Amino acid sequence: MSFDPATLKYDDKGLIPAIAQDAASGEVLMMAWMNHEAVAKTLETGRVTYWSRSRQAFWIKGESSGHVQELVDFRYDCDADCVLVTVHQTGPACHTNRRSCFYRAVREGEVVELMAPML
Amino acid sequence: MSFDPATLKYDDKGLIPAIAQDAASGEVLMMAWMNHEAVAKTLETGRVTYWSRSRQAFWIKGESSGHVQELVDFRYDCDADCVLVTVHQTGPACHTNRRSCFYRAVREGEVVELMAPML
Repeated sequence: MSFDPATLKYDDKGLIPAIAQDAASGEVLMMAWMNHEAVAKTLETGRVTYWSRSRQAFWIKGESSGHVQELVDFRYDCDADCVLVTVHQTGPACHTNRRSCFYRAVREGEVVELMAPML
Repeated sequence: MSFDPATLKYDDKGLIPAIAQDAASGEVLMMAWMNHEAVAKTLETGRVTYWSRSRQAFWIKGESSGHVQELVDFRYDCDADCVLVTVHQTGPACHTNRRSCFYRAVREGEVVELMAPML
């Protein structure tokens, strides 16, 4: 069956959450949003492309920072309302310069920082 | 710093996306939604608890199916608008009886099924 980005289920803003996972390590790097054109661009170019809600513009990950995400595999879930991209991540995924955006944990009620910014 | 679930950023429906990842294998299992009470219940009970948007009720994962998610680590991202729970998953995470909800990929424009339902 050929894939049509329009068959995914987008929310009332036309967006779908997209999880980025490191293809080699399995680490979950970040979550951002795509619209159906960003889904199409990601598949066409092999460069993971989100929709920036703050800028209301396409966000080709790493275009300004160099911290690009090369698409390895594009997956979607049972309800077709969430995307999972496995990627080769260059440098840190997080704008705080950490490898992953999920750098804080809650343990025994306390916030614990799990990783430092990359040098 | 002690953690207060109210400090996470919830959307205009009071919800935050929550990604569940298998703590042992690193596999991304599913994405669902929590409200601030579901976050608190998850942390208090160690049983991952979502908010069901269709039922408008708490959804203690596995309560009816037995496919529970035991919380291993609770993490959140740089913008505090997405949660990542690492879990011990009993049985399949997906209601289709597959291990992960992300069982379909798009490869060379075609939809490919990556895993079969568990027996």
